[in-house]
Amino acid sequence: MSALVPVVQAFREGRRFLIAGHVDPDPDCIGSLLAVDWLLERLGKEAQPLSHDALLPQWQFFPRIDRIAHPTAGAPWSRETWDTLVVVDCELERTGSVALWADRVERVINIDHHVTNEGTGDINLIDPGAAATGELIYRVIRAAGVGLDASVATLLYAAIMSDTGSFRFSNTTAAAFEIAADLVRHGAEPDVIAGELYDTRSWEYVRLLGRVLETLQRSPDGSVAWITLTQEMIREEGARADESEGFIQYPRMIDGVEVALFFKETGPGEVRVGFRSKRRVDVSQLAQEFGGGGHPRAAGCTFRGTLDQAVEQIVARAVQLAGDPV
Amino acid sequence: MSALVPVVQAFREGRRFLIAGHVDPDPDCIGSLLAVDWLLERLGKEAQPLSHDALLPQWQFFPRIDRIAHPTAGAPWSRETWDTLVVVDCELERTGSVALWADRVERVINIDHHVTNEGTGDINLIDPGAAATGELIYRVIRAAGVGLDASVATLLYAAIMSDTGSFRFSNTTAAAFEIAADLVRHGAEPDVIAGELYDTRSWEYVRLLGRVLETLQRSPDGSVAWITLTQEMIREEGARADESEGFIQYPRMIDGVEVALFFKETGPGEVRVGFRSKRRVDVSQLAQEFGGGGHPRAAGCTFRGTLDQAVEQIVARAVQLAGDPV
Repeated sequence: MSALVPVVQAFREGRRFLIAGHVDPDPDCIGSLLAVDWLLERLGKEAQPLSHDALLPQWQFFPRIDRIAHPTAGAPWSRETWDTLVVVDCELERTGSVALWADRVERVINIDHHVTNEGTGDINLIDPGAAATGELIYRVIRAAGVGLDASVATLLYAAIMSDTGSFRFSNTTAAAFEIAADLVRHGAEPDVIAGELYDTRSWEYVRLLGRVLETLQRSPDGSVAWITLTQEMIREEGARADESEGFIQYPRMIDGVEVALFFKETGPGEVRVGFRSKRRVDVSQLAQEFGGGGHPRAAGCTFRGTLDQAVEQIVARAVQLAGDPV
Repeated sequence: MSALVPVVQAFREGRRFLIAGHVDPDPDCIGSLLAVDWLLERLGKEAQPLSHDALLPQWQFFPRIDRIAHPTAGAPWSRETWDTLVVVDCELERTGSVALWADRVERVINIDHHVTNEGTGDINLIDPGAAATGELIYRVIRAAGVGLDASVATLLYAAIMSDTGSFRFSNTTAAAFEIAADLVRHGAEPDVIAGELYDTRSWEYVRLLGRVLETLQRSPDGSVAWITLTQEMIREEGARADESEGFIQYPRMIDGVEVALFFKETGPGEVRVGFRSKRRVDVSQLAQEFGGGGHPRAAGCTFRGTLDQAVEQIVARAVQLAGDPV
């Protein structure tokens, strides 16, 4: 807990804060960003939350979401002076154009739960044992002695719920459940937040899912299953290019499947490949063989070549690994 | 908490217990049943868990699952004498053939969280505020002063996780999260249990889902969406008749949809209809108009007629209700 003290002290000492998360933000990033903004307001500070990339329409339910600005050069806030940059849920390098501000502030505070983060801020709170960055922000708020309200409880709950896959991933700890209990007591509504995060898919998303499931295939031994998505399918269904989030869970949920693959054509001769495994296979190594990386159970790579080539080469290698007897 | 005392006392006083849940059991029922069996063993009692209906293959991971017997007339246990019948997660009437035993025991203990249960046992612990019957069994074990181990923690966690829809339904309370934290501390593994409950679908299930999503339709105003499943589709994909669990979440997850419908042909001239709503429409009333019933947000009915007739009549009525301005 001692790592909390310098962070709280820096929050108390600073006066004007920029706050940023990573490019291509997710709910843990957005919830953490806005919860820091909330805390700084409670502490009587000036703060400006920033996001390099646009926010998804279904995130409008996040309290305070309209406070997030794009780090455009020349925006009114950019002509002012800021003393502290708070980076949440990533390293400074992943904040996109916000990273340029690191040299223009007195110090950088980095708060993150990713194991790959080596802590390059002036003050760092890095804990891979935390279920989400939202859990770390919760601890900071508690350490600062600031009482919760329903808006920050909603932000932190959305962060933790989302990053634990609705309490289903291996980062779901007893501490995460205890914090969830406290957040519900302070006004977070699990069913409402789940509804906003999961029950706001577009018509095109569900149509596209149906199309993609038609492509479902598996290896003769059943240990590898995969789906494919072409640019043509996206066009025909009128979907957005990013509307295939979560599709990889379908080959993964099949009994007997050890490795699930999702091949998505992202351009001519370019295929984005998602990898998931259940128990034995380290898919981060598999993804590395094709120039990508990630975690043992979830990884990705970008393949240069046609969709057919990607399927042929990567499935063959996945079957070798998944079919191995233990 | 006082309702716990008579239950604990009856568990201590009895010697030989039958335990039963409802027909067509779900994970809350099975987890509660086996957790009571575990507690009675700890208290030095004889116990026999029973289930009228068969268990799904994916439930083999439940600790103690092999202790459950079918209430067949003439089985060895049925020739013995039992003093207490414990009914969990339902009323006595829903236990199927086990209900016949009520007259042959000294007393019936009923433990349930369903609001419709009026408590017709000799001793009743009925609390609709509990997220799951598993939460009530947890409280009984704690009140009995018996320490948890990993096997009973797994049983109770599976019960609570499943009945809250992985902590996404409106019955997800702060108390449920606190209990989940305690169960994880005692050895329940959220990711492993989620994997067993959700990542063990058959190949045919996922194929059938793809077929059903092709039938997705919606009303012109987008407030009602529906899917259909025919006997022919089940046959063609080689699926089991019960392998359509959860399909209704797909029309429901679409932004702007208030009422989701799932039409499933269950025989010639017979259609099982599932109803879900998000916020405004009371689908239990809608289902009642067609001879069914349920809860405001989840209901069902059996329609006599063809699939086309069911879709035509029920969609028309759903659009009237869902399209109404608030």
